[in-house]
Amino acid sequence: MQKIQVGVLGATGAVGQRFVQLLQGHPWFEITALFASERSAGKRYVDACRWNLRGDMPTALHTQVIHECAPGPECQIVFSALPSETAGEIEKAFAAAGYVVCSNARNHRYDPDVPLLIPEVNPEHLALIDIQKRARGWNGYITTNPNCSTTHLVSALHPLHLRFGVTKIFVVTMQAISGAGYPGVSSMDILDNVIPYISGEEEKMELKEPQKLLGTFDGSGVRYADFVVSAHCNRVPTRNGHLEAISVEFAEKPTQEQIVQAWRDYQPLAQQLRLPSAPQPAILYDARPDRPQPRLDRMAGSVAGMATVVGRLRPDPLLHYKFMALGHNTIRGAAGGSLLNAELLVALGYLGQEAALLAKSTKFA
Amino acid sequence: MQKIQVGVLGATGAVGQRFVQLLQGHPWFEITALFASERSAGKRYVDACRWNLRGDMPTALHTQVIHECAPGPECQIVFSALPSETAGEIEKAFAAAGYVVCSNARNHRYDPDVPLLIPEVNPEHLALIDIQKRARGWNGYITTNPNCSTTHLVSALHPLHLRFGVTKIFVVTMQAISGAGYPGVSSMDILDNVIPYISGEEEKMELKEPQKLLGTFDGSGVRYADFVVSAHCNRVPTRNGHLEAISVEFAEKPTQEQIVQAWRDYQPLAQQLRLPSAPQPAILYDARPDRPQPRLDRMAGSVAGMATVVGRLRPDPLLHYKFMALGHNTIRGAAGGSLLNAELLVALGYLGQEAALLAKSTKFA
Amino acid sequence: MQKIQVGVLGATGAVGQRFVQLLQGHPWFEITALFASERSAGKRYVDACRWNLRGDMPTALHTQVIHECAPGPECQIVFSALPSETAGEIEKAFAAAGYVVCSNARNHRYDPDVPLLIPEVNPEHLALIDIQKRARGWNGYITTNPNCSTTHLVSALHPLHLRFGVTKIFVVTMQAISGAGYPGVSSMDILDNVIPYISGEEEKMELKEPQKLLGTFDGSGVRYADFVVSAHCNRVPTRNGHLEAISVEFAEKPTQEQIVQAWRDYQPLAQQLRLPSAPQPAILYDARPDRPQPRLDRMAGSVAGMATVVGRLRPDPLLHYKFMALGHNTIRGAAGGSLLNAELLVALGYLGQEAALLAKSTKFA
Amino acid sequence: MQKIQVGVLGATGAVGQRFVQLLQGHPWFEITALFASERSAGKRYVDACRWNLRGDMPTALHTQVIHECAPGPECQIVFSALPSETAGEIEKAFAAAGYVVCSNARNHRYDPDVPLLIPEVNPEHLALIDIQKRARGWNGYITTNPNCSTTHLVSALHPLHLRFGVTKIFVVTMQAISGAGYPGVSSMDILDNVIPYISGEEEKMELKEPQKLLGTFDGSGVRYADFVVSAHCNRVPTRNGHLEAISVEFAEKPTQEQIVQAWRDYQPLAQQLRLPSAPQPAILYDARPDRPQPRLDRMAGSVAGMATVVGRLRPDPLLHYKFMALGHNTIRGAAGGSLLNAELLVALGYLGQEAALLAKSTKFA
Repeated sequence: MQKIQVGVLGATGAVGQRFVQLLQGHPWFEITALFASERSAGKRYVDACRWNLRGDMPTALHTQVIHECAPGPECQIVFSALPSETAGEIEKAFAAAGYVVCSNARNHRYDPDVPLLIPEVNPEHLALIDIQKRARGWNGYITTNPNCSTTHLVSALHPLHLRFGVTKIFVVTMQAISGAGYPGVSSMDILDNVIPYISGEEEKMELKEPQKLLGTFDGSGVRYADFVVSAHCNRVPTRNGHLEAISVEFAEKPTQEQIVQAWRDYQPLAQQLRLPSAPQPAILYDARPDRPQPRLDRMAGSVAGMATVVGRLRPDPLLHYKFMALGHNTIRGAAGGSLLNAELLVALGYLGQEAALLAKSTKFA
Repeated sequence: MQKIQVGVLGATGAVGQRFVQLLQGHPWFEITALFASERSAGKRYVDACRWNLRGDMPTALHTQVIHECAPGPECQIVFSALPSETAGEIEKAFAAAGYVVCSNARNHRYDPDVPLLIPEVNPEHLALIDIQKRARGWNGYITTNPNCSTTHLVSALHPLHLRFGVTKIFVVTMQAISGAGYPGVSSMDILDNVIPYISGEEEKMELKEPQKLLGTFDGSGVRYADFVVSAHCNRVPTRNGHLEAISVEFAEKPTQEQIVQAWRDYQPLAQQLRLPSAPQPAILYDARPDRPQPRLDRMAGSVAGMATVVGRLRPDPLLHYKFMALGHNTIRGAAGGSLLNAELLVALGYLGQEAALLAKSTKFA
Repeated sequence: MQKIQVGVLGATGAVGQRFVQLLQGHPWFEITALFASERSAGKRYVDACRWNLRGDMPTALHTQVIHECAPGPECQIVFSALPSETAGEIEKAFAAAGYVVCSNARNHRYDPDVPLLIPEVNPEHLALIDIQKRARGWNGYITTNPNCSTTHLVSALHPLHLRFGVTKIFVVTMQAISGAGYPGVSSMDILDNVIPYISGEEEKMELKEPQKLLGTFDGSGVRYADFVVSAHCNRVPTRNGHLEAISVEFAEKPTQEQIVQAWRDYQPLAQQLRLPSAPQPAILYDARPDRPQPRLDRMAGSVAGMATVVGRLRPDPLLHYKFMALGHNTIRGAAGGSLLNAELLVALGYLGQEAALLAKSTKFA
Repeated sequence: MQKIQVGVLGATGAVGQRFVQLLQGHPWFEITALFASERSAGKRYVDACRWNLRGDMPTALHTQVIHECAPGPECQIVFSALPSETAGEIEKAFAAAGYVVCSNARNHRYDPDVPLLIPEVNPEHLALIDIQKRARGWNGYITTNPNCSTTHLVSALHPLHLRFGVTKIFVVTMQAISGAGYPGVSSMDILDNVIPYISGEEEKMELKEPQKLLGTFDGSGVRYADFVVSAHCNRVPTRNGHLEAISVEFAEKPTQEQIVQAWRDYQPLAQQLRLPSAPQPAILYDARPDRPQPRLDRMAGSVAGMATVVGRLRPDPLLHYKFMALGHNTIRGAAGGSLLNAELLVALGYLGQEAALLAKSTKFA
């Protein structure tokens, strides 16, 4: 069986390159279209893209000619690594034209009919897709993944929320430079320094994303969860891996052991489905006193860069408990998050029953 | 008039060098004795000390011969930069022998009869000195300064506590490598990394130091303040300057403007006395959205490295307000803190009335 | 007496800010005009400039309104921090209009009638000024300072060249990120990395600048020195301070002691004239085995950032000797170099005899 | 067939951990003995060793009990990661007792009867083993690998030396912090800094190692090659990967194309034998103008960390050509170098003909 054909929107940028890297050798997907800005369109990928990741650009893509960001080229899914300046309209055009858009951009995350999705956390929100298609009259549709900092915060809290009900969250992030893209943060600003400000980041974490992700689908839309979040966001001189100091209060206060157990027992749908990019387990609990650390743990787990690592769990004098969470920001927190979303769509039949069955038997070739 | 003779205990280490550096050209004090471990005793300072600060070792001290850490050499004040393994007993021996000990070590900070002092914050705690001398039968006495992270947290909160009464504090620190001394943090551990753990640090900030510093002297001892503190302490790859993300709740919730005003109006005793190492003002409020930053602001203010810089004040969804505080950890947070304590002692007559008068007229030579 | 009025071309950029910083409180000069691109012209300096240096923007300049980069505003000297894309024509326009242009840009460095100047090294090349004015029919004129890497290489070698005649130079640079301006080097490129390439840098060091600087004025022009230079240029993750590993061969091989003596005896015209920005001495020789180091030594000497520090002198198995040289790249290697050039012009009468006399007596106010 | 049993001397240190990591899943070798200092002996590996590499300590070794560094435990080969303070005598004791010692320590590198070996470069030097065994009356023997900086210098030059005869070498190294072990370089020394000195390093590169490695075995010993080397060694703030700026002169000057061709054609014995840790090819030539770079290229090639990457080839004004070379210092430059040596010994029959045949057929299990 043929693999599912996919495209990458914004393929020459930092997140676009991650998509290309993660899609290499993927068991279900193959890249058949690369899209980028007018400046790059018409050029070969190897000429238009300054490859910035460790390891080389996949040779098979060197000579692929880049398309403008407009519907047309043959593929079923497009992964969007577009900047928010352009993502909004382009993604709508693709969805209208029948493509499945798995977007890492923030533009449609808060649209009431667009799923903001972490496969482990809220697969039931995919019910929004039908609502979206109907409301907009589209053949295709858009799904989105959350911001890199939100992803790991919510991933770490989800099993606790299920059992004990999160009511208050205090979070201070120490975010890696790759979160700002390329060239992104000037070395003049970050060498021997911390920048205690990331534009728009605290708003996303306090008001929008965690509440939607952990909200409940009520048949017509997502009712936002009603816990309160306080977030301070900082940029630190690490390359990859967002580290977060988290304090949390619950509706029912568990014991420390119960929290660890909730993390250990966590085996959500995405893991049960054995999606190719789903780490087993989703959450790694490290009991050592000085972990997780970005350099040592950002690639931990069975699928490099896709797990959330938690540690330093201890009582909090103000709320109930505090702990550290860490995750890779450009893999699970961006391109890898979108990719896992696409895998969930396939497995749950949103790309057709045939694809779902093939995915199950991994008969793609 | 002769300057007051002072000594430095642990003069070859990282904090000891800062004492030596800060005492260069001091209007009131001159170094007449350098003390270090047995290994260094008997050697010239230039031979025993691997000078590690920018700028050179003061030439006048090159040939001073280092003493063992025992009473004897002539001086009135000894500044203690000793490690906690040895500071406890040595400092007691000096105080018993009649020296004024201004210590940066943690050993005696929590002794009920030893002042834990920030001159701007709790000069009235100096009343403990008489109690200490009587209780222990000493001619001399010990004063201490708090831990580097506590210093700037409490400095930033003190004017707010005076007006609005602090009840709850959340703090997440991002601490510089110099806080661990020399050689301290291995480059293998911190390059491209954050370490979410500093041994003993959270305990000091949560349970011991802020409550004593902002406590009230009731005639016989210090009644600890009863606010609650939650602290997460992290080591980040910056050289100097501890940055702290702080959320705070008050007995009476002020407006944002009232908080800024409280910082701007702040003019405590140490500043009124115009102590040589007291920055004017003590607290710098920076309204720019991305400040304070360690590299840009750790040396800010009228006395380099002695001020606390605050910024990013904004409402907090859980407590009342949140903001960032920054201060130099080895200057105000260590050696400079002890030095300012000694200046306060002189100005308030704890080294005799003659010294106090001379200090006022700056007639030392 | 009034100070000499000066302007800064490109005042909002990284080098422009250094000019502004170094001119603060200058005994001879005061800034009366700030020039920048169209985008900034008409705005107040505080609004147009994102101040990027430690310490604050001088308050006196906050409200100065920025001019477009065209002759007109009143001042005698303009310091040019313009990028090479625009410096060429703008500097010529100012010189034609009668201004003295002290430029840090590379555009006119290799013009046969424009002095490429290090005051300690080749003050006799100022004879080109008359030739330039005559040839071009200008009232004003242009002088330039060399590239940051060349500056310290040539400064370290000049006293040796005078005594022993340099014939071959091998140099490998490890250059700081600030050399690329702001935002300059992306943190994504340089964290945990070295970039073994700086566009155009090796050509300047191998073929153009050292040979002109150490060339001889023969009455009508500069005869280039004829030694051979091999340069490898690298970018390393340091903020400031270019470090250079240098091997050298001489016409007459000196002893190691004679080299040290040549550095120690070095007392060129700029130092004899006691120019305000001339460090005393110009070259610092450090005998410690592991010096100079960028962090510890880039601000060494009597005028911070203006000296060249040399060390690790030892025999070289291929050429005669090898050693390390270090200097600040944005102070002496850029803005400070231009400033010292201007001071030399004043002292030698190139801004009129009255100014020269006043400079001597420091009667400016 | 059973795999060959191997031990690791100094298994808890930085290089020891690399040995353990690289031996995981090795097709020919399995670890049956871990040796460390008295302090660790008797403890389980998981308790005695602070694992410091990305990825976890192999679980199978957690409960292995550590031996003192003395002969006895069953294994044929011991890999030595001992510090030079203790390596000398311990390695001799093991060799005398019949073990094959593959050492990364410097102690015996320059012994006339001990091979200093890079499998690609000088396999014929293994003839020293018989001479060594006879001279010392040992059943076992010692082989060594060169210093991390020498390894990549000589690897890059070997194919050129074969064709054109190297006569003069200039090399300036920019070495990673991991080269100094753990804790090794203090973060206080290297953050925002370069240290232009590594004790003993220049002597090894100038006088001892390249000449022995590229020397010829004359039947009784190694006649040192007679080219001249000038080396400046520097420590820079990169984690892994030594970068070297190299200029070289040849007996017969080749064209630039001939040099590239020599690198491309290079297919020495170790690669022909398809040793498991031999990268294919051994040398990677990168034509991009700004490569190799430590972060991007240190793990390049078919066996991560084992190749040498060269680039920036261009004419040198003083010698013939200059270029950059890069290689991983703790993999190929240390533990991986020793491991490849052991593989060569097996393949060439130095552990018996049976092992050699099995290795060829990879019938180990």
